[in-house]
Amino acid sequence: MSSTQEIYESKWIPKIQAYRQKLADQVKPYEYLVKDIDTSSPTFNAHAVIPTLLTPEEIKITGLKAIELVNAQKAGELTAVEIFKAFSKRGAIAHLLTNCAMELFFDEGLKQAEELDEYRASHGGELKGAFHGLPISVKEQMKFPGKVTHASYVAFLDNVVTAEPYSKFTSPIYDIVKTQGAVFYMRTAQPQAIMHLDTHNNITGRTTNPYNAKLSPGGSSGGASADAALAGSVISIGSDIGGSIRAPAAFCDLYGIRPTAKRIHSLGGLSAAVGQKSILAAQGPLTRSIEDLEYYMEHLINDGKPWEYDTSVAPMLWTKPDLGKEITVGFMMTDTIVEPADAIKRGLEFVKEKLSSYKDVKINIKLVNLDPALMKAAYTANLNCYGQSVNKQRKAIDDIGEPVLPLTEFYYGFEAKDNDIAANNIAIDSLTTYFFQQIFVKEGLDFIISPNSPNVADIPNNLRYWGYTSIYNMIDFPSIVFRTGLTYDVEKDVNGPVGVEGLVFNKEDYVNAPICLQVASVKYQEEKLVEMVKILDKALGL
Amino acid sequence: MSSTQEIYESKWIPKIQAYRQKLADQVKPYEYLVKDIDTSSPTFNAHAVIPTLLTPEEIKITGLKAIELVNAQKAGELTAVEIFKAFSKRGAIAHLLTNCAMELFFDEGLKQAEELDEYRASHGGELKGAFHGLPISVKEQMKFPGKVTHASYVAFLDNVVTAEPYSKFTSPIYDIVKTQGAVFYMRTAQPQAIMHLDTHNNITGRTTNPYNAKLSPGGSSGGASADAALAGSVISIGSDIGGSIRAPAAFCDLYGIRPTAKRIHSLGGLSAAVGQKSILAAQGPLTRSIEDLEYYMEHLINDGKPWEYDTSVAPMLWTKPDLGKEITVGFMMTDTIVEPADAIKRGLEFVKEKLSSYKDVKINIKLVNLDPALMKAAYTANLNCYGQSVNKQRKAIDDIGEPVLPLTEFYYGFEAKDNDIAANNIAIDSLTTYFFQQIFVKEGLDFIISPNSPNVADIPNNLRYWGYTSIYNMIDFPSIVFRTGLTYDVEKDVNGPVGVEGLVFNKEDYVNAPICLQVASVKYQEEKLVEMVKILDKALGL
Repeated sequence: MSSTQEIYESKWIPKIQAYRQKLADQVKPYEYLVKDIDTSSPTFNAHAVIPTLLTPEEIKITGLKAIELVNAQKAGELTAVEIFKAFSKRGAIAHLLTNCAMELFFDEGLKQAEELDEYRASHGGELKGAFHGLPISVKEQMKFPGKVTHASYVAFLDNVVTAEPYSKFTSPIYDIVKTQGAVFYMRTAQPQAIMHLDTHNNITGRTTNPYNAKLSPGGSSGGASADAALAGSVISIGSDIGGSIRAPAAFCDLYGIRPTAKRIHSLGGLSAAVGQKSILAAQGPLTRSIEDLEYYMEHLINDGKPWEYDTSVAPMLWTKPDLGKEITVGFMMTDTIVEPADAIKRGLEFVKEKLSSYKDVKINIKLVNLDPALMKAAYTANLNCYGQSVNKQRKAIDDIGEPVLPLTEFYYGFEAKDNDIAANNIAIDSLTTYFFQQIFVKEGLDFIISPNSPNVADIPNNLRYWGYTSIYNMIDFPSIVFRTGLTYDVEKDVNGPVGVEGLVFNKEDYVNAPICLQVASVKYQEEKLVEMVKILDKALGL
Repeated sequence: MSSTQEIYESKWIPKIQAYRQKLADQVKPYEYLVKDIDTSSPTFNAHAVIPTLLTPEEIKITGLKAIELVNAQKAGELTAVEIFKAFSKRGAIAHLLTNCAMELFFDEGLKQAEELDEYRASHGGELKGAFHGLPISVKEQMKFPGKVTHASYVAFLDNVVTAEPYSKFTSPIYDIVKTQGAVFYMRTAQPQAIMHLDTHNNITGRTTNPYNAKLSPGGSSGGASADAALAGSVISIGSDIGGSIRAPAAFCDLYGIRPTAKRIHSLGGLSAAVGQKSILAAQGPLTRSIEDLEYYMEHLINDGKPWEYDTSVAPMLWTKPDLGKEITVGFMMTDTIVEPADAIKRGLEFVKEKLSSYKDVKINIKLVNLDPALMKAAYTANLNCYGQSVNKQRKAIDDIGEPVLPLTEFYYGFEAKDNDIAANNIAIDSLTTYFFQQIFVKEGLDFIISPNSPNVADIPNNLRYWGYTSIYNMIDFPSIVFRTGLTYDVEKDVNGPVGVEGLVFNKEDYVNAPICLQVASVKYQEEKLVEMVKILDKALGL
């Protein structure tokens, strides 16, 4: 009888190779474009290079916002096929430069685009829906009808419909968005166990940051962030249970929202952590503009009615709120557990200053002072909640002898031995009431602006603290990552974060890393958050 | 050192006696009214007797609906004090006849009513809010500001603010409803551990059914149902995690809603089962008419904005839906686990027949066929979910030597030994998807009408199956108990339920027991449910 290791090599390695080959075959026609690019430089900047590989027309098309692409099709100025060809070429290059895709299917994408053009022609110029002809990439773990979904577990490489009782249903994202005319051609990468703030797995390898290849694109939706940053798609859909949309968005200079968990659908995400209900995962878009983010959320909700697919969704239409003449913003300069790096502090001060002198509405600035003991207990509860699932995740990896990657090993360390789920739930409820009553209501805050991560995009091994994002997963308050327009400055940003286990800060590593922050509100205030980010954009001159 | 038993007798029995004495003192002035009533007859009918103890004016006032009471005050035809005096007298008698209250405070109630009249006088006849001058009773376990809340645990008899981390906040119900002018004077009884379908505890004893004292008023909100049925309050607020609003409503010929868990506030309910998040408790009203139920929900939500008190609430306004010209109703004649008693079957057939011949809208009738294996697995998961908390509930009772009542002993039997919370959550999600996709969506159902309990109001010892109500707690679909207008018929209803552990059916026991049923929809469709119940009322000639 063979050992687990021998079985892994004889049974699973060939499956991995076949999977990789299929992916490589898809981008083979585009390889000539990048053959002269030296991607081996330690801080290779794919974002700077990619426009040099495209025609002016391709640059123009892929530079348009969702609404502009839709309007151009309505006006007969662009076809879905033209849009698809520009984005898919850019997506192929993005993959060749950052390894952002797990699966590509250009032929299917082209066919969808052709059908959409035919639809438009046969319907007197009318479009199929709000996403007509928009290439949208989706994180691989969202079960795609008729395709293998493995969630980066080698053991699931044959999984089309898993054995989980309620997973016979594929993710509603495909139905909802496709019904409105979205074009799918790329499923994006996520890390092993989908529980790193980096994106590295044993099936397709590591994804790199588009601004600096030495750095991580973030995780777990790091394929989505690399794709979105390089404009391989109009919108990239990720998912987030501890920061998995927001860390990647922040590391790649994007906007990204983790909505309130039940604001949109969440069915059909493959995970070995199934059955954990203390902290809920949420899906959301990563985009290059707040307008694209809003466009996606508005039409997904108002036209797509996700509650007709997933009954757990609150049937609330997306509205256009008025923030009024006076806004109060709390700045959380530290969560009291990890002190952010200089770059993040500089970003916070910059935003604070710009908001203070903003003229269109009055913005009151307050500082958020948190209870260190409560924050510490909350983070412990957070790790214990995720840790409830470690035994299952470990089993899915270890049972077939799949190698355990370093950040998976780190994550395994949170395995909850006593598994006191009720105690963790009480800690979460306590934290929720604290943030709602003592921070938001008592201080009269409309929003909290905070670090999103302790640092800008970091080297993978440093990505070991998710407290700034996971706090909002725990209390289920929505938050959006926004751009500051600043980037890391080796002269100014000389100190790294304080308090992250095992972190090695080398200031030469962060060249070109964007500085992004996070803004949060109380539950179900997604629309107000979007309006606030528009104000931020304006205040910051973006 | 004394034994636990000795300490219980020396320390806790005096506290119980003092608590009972305080309650008895409140109703002492009313005792003369009932001194000639023979409450000892085995099937004593308090509901029939109570009007004989009131003046015509009191009968008239306590017979008015919420909206009529509000309008009468607006018109200057009634004062809040007049309303209070009529209802509180009726409430005092209700308590003397059924033992429905745990705490009474007539002086405070009168003072509130006086203040409301002063408010109206000093505001040009304007009322304080939608609940101006309406006596509303609240289940004792909802933490009342400044009063002891014990949730029927003797050990909590001194508890004003408990040691639970997030229970420093009293229930928002008081703020929300009081701000709108509600008058409080009665907190209603619940059973030991708040986990019986009956209402019996060691602090205030047993509550009886207003229609037949041999029968249970239901539980756990059985004080609320007895109070509401005897019109001691305009509206009685209960809470429900497995049927605790609906069983009492059905047993006492009332309307009662368990809304979607996060449609309204749920903070501040005292329970030893804290931290269990697989199945969530919900609050809701028990009323004598669907109009009162709607009035409460509409104004609680639209005027009270519960999401401003409890951030977990979805901020959705109460709307007036149009059910359209065609409605499809599925009849669940059995849940495949317990076959209902003849009385319930007769009720279902009666409603089916009346709906079939209903003229105002077209009503399509379908039969709901459930998967027995899935239903059985679901009920097992249900018991396991509640069973997660048994060790804590047991501790709160056993540690001080509080006697364990028979239905508590029965409930202890569900203690989850393996405590596989994730597996239970998966079973719940599976059931939710099944009911949503395979039952509602696939069959095109708008509503499901089903038994609410296996039988009409039963003798306490028979109350050992909650599958018909708990199914909707598990999948978090809202449901309303509605009246059929029928009562138990000893000639026709000769068979009891089949499949309830230890049930002893004696057909002579059920004299005057009302027949009520349950109607459910998918999540967040509370308004549609109310409209459907109005149709049912009309179809049934109520």
